[in-house]
Amino acid sequence: MKIGLDMMGGDFAPASTVGGVLLAMQELNAHHTLVLIGDTRKFKPLLEKNNRVSREYELVHTTQSIEMGDNPAKAFAQKTDSSIAVGYRLLQQGKLDGFASAGSTGAMLVGAHYSVKTIEGIIRPAIATTLPSLDGQGNIILDIGINPDCRPDILYQYGILGSLYARHVCGFTNPRVGLLNIGAEETKGNLLTRSAYELMSGNKEFNFAGNVEGNDLFSNAKVDVVVADGFVGNVVLKEAETFFTIARKLGIQHDFIEKFNFENYGGTPILGINAPVVIGHGISNDVAIKNMILQTVYVIEAKLTERIKEAFK
Amino acid sequence: MKIGLDMMGGDFAPASTVGGVLLAMQELNAHHTLVLIGDTRKFKPLLEKNNRVSREYELVHTTQSIEMGDNPAKAFAQKTDSSIAVGYRLLQQGKLDGFASAGSTGAMLVGAHYSVKTIEGIIRPAIATTLPSLDGQGNIILDIGINPDCRPDILYQYGILGSLYARHVCGFTNPRVGLLNIGAEETKGNLLTRSAYELMSGNKEFNFAGNVEGNDLFSNAKVDVVVADGFVGNVVLKEAETFFTIARKLGIQHDFIEKFNFENYGGTPILGINAPVVIGHGISNDVAIKNMILQTVYVIEAKLTERIKEAFK
Repeated sequence: MKIGLDMMGGDFAPASTVGGVLLAMQELNAHHTLVLIGDTRKFKPLLEKNNRVSREYELVHTTQSIEMGDNPAKAFAQKTDSSIAVGYRLLQQGKLDGFASAGSTGAMLVGAHYSVKTIEGIIRPAIATTLPSLDGQGNIILDIGINPDCRPDILYQYGILGSLYARHVCGFTNPRVGLLNIGAEETKGNLLTRSAYELMSGNKEFNFAGNVEGNDLFSNAKVDVVVADGFVGNVVLKEAETFFTIARKLGIQHDFIEKFNFENYGGTPILGINAPVVIGHGISNDVAIKNMILQTVYVIEAKLTERIKEAFK
Repeated sequence: MKIGLDMMGGDFAPASTVGGVLLAMQELNAHHTLVLIGDTRKFKPLLEKNNRVSREYELVHTTQSIEMGDNPAKAFAQKTDSSIAVGYRLLQQGKLDGFASAGSTGAMLVGAHYSVKTIEGIIRPAIATTLPSLDGQGNIILDIGINPDCRPDILYQYGILGSLYARHVCGFTNPRVGLLNIGAEETKGNLLTRSAYELMSGNKEFNFAGNVEGNDLFSNAKVDVVVADGFVGNVVLKEAETFFTIARKLGIQHDFIEKFNFENYGGTPILGINAPVVIGHGISNDVAIKNMILQTVYVIEAKLTERIKEAFK
């Protein structure tokens, strides 16, 4: 299995990506080959300093890089020798089984859209993350930002995508899917959620557990997967990040609060496209890069893409 | 000045409302007369047990009460001798200067709509609360639930309402108003926030400070007032409440975290209607009821209703 990694992506790259590779290799085995994509002049010396022999991984040299300030669509189209563009090309050609980057989220999404493309039948792909919970495995929440203007049928599909991701990658046996709303009753909400509720209610494609509210988050009491439009999901996630920032500023130390440190999170797969792609946080540290690599492996091994295709046939 | 109080409103009424009245009277003076509306057979003995003499307040006996399970519109129309219906009637007749209740939020909103009515020129009233901040006076956020389907011009008006409330009631000298969004740039967001940004940008009616994100909440670094549609505002508030619940479960004690205990909060004025009305939390305790009474006094003394009318002339 070949896992492509953008070595230039992330605020602390390539130091963080090299660090992440070294950590990941302790957990990977002979079946896993990392394909390191980027300016080899910049990251190879760092690997060599750590006495890594080159046969453990493959190197792909690229000469350009997409910066955070770049227009994602333009940069992806014009910088054809950037690590992100090359990664997607290799993925599309079947030379990679999955691709991960902590670089420009915009360029990663554009790349997904233009190269591997959305799975037929899926209106809009989504990205998901896990919110920690006190009483279980956490809440998978999607979408967290790709699609800020949603329709009820898109939210319905998020129910399927989130459910498959929760089951096959995150280890939930029969994930309960909730619709993020502003009241428990089915008549509550805005036009979007009221219509989405109607679509979800009684469906046979996922285990719909009804509406949840902001105070049902961070708990597996009611649901495992939380469906929201990309606007609401993004606000919820950033508010959760703020809790961690506040706790840190107050000097509060607690193992559970530490789970809100999204800097350690591996990243989010783009759910609903034709190949395994994982996007990391821009501020990823070595541990986050390692987790992003491992998450890509899990998504590939779980055959998530094939399972999603099957569901939307 | 006469402040009407629904003695039957709230999960712990009338014990909590009587408790709140006793606490409030320690801070009120001869200019303030509390008008206690409800089933006097139920709450008067509690007052007497505390040796309160009746000339300190006025009693209005009512025989019906609106329950949490009632349909708000029907209950308000049919239970004409309920404490909420009577309170609004007295308010409309000018016999009260303001009215407060921790009872059915739905019935309080219906009452506002049908009796004192929305100020001319205002598309939709809003309710607001304060999120605590580490570095200042906190963030006023509106709307927190009346209006889950917003238009850009409604969000624009929330900027005016929030700004007036922050300035005249909450003590901000020149409140900066932010638009809750999913990116700092003006091109970010959904259709609603992008259009709202355009309307707000360069306006002369309030001090617009641009977009803010979920991780700008709980801070006065960028803004003092946060404008959101009622769906997003409600999710944000309930997520903040959850933060407090989690901290309590973890046994984390901290003065700042205690500020997230919304049980102590007085309530929220309905901004944009023709009289001062404050809605309390259903789970209000004595302190919350006291704070709700005092907040009603502040809203009256600040002449907030008149100032809003002036702004929308």
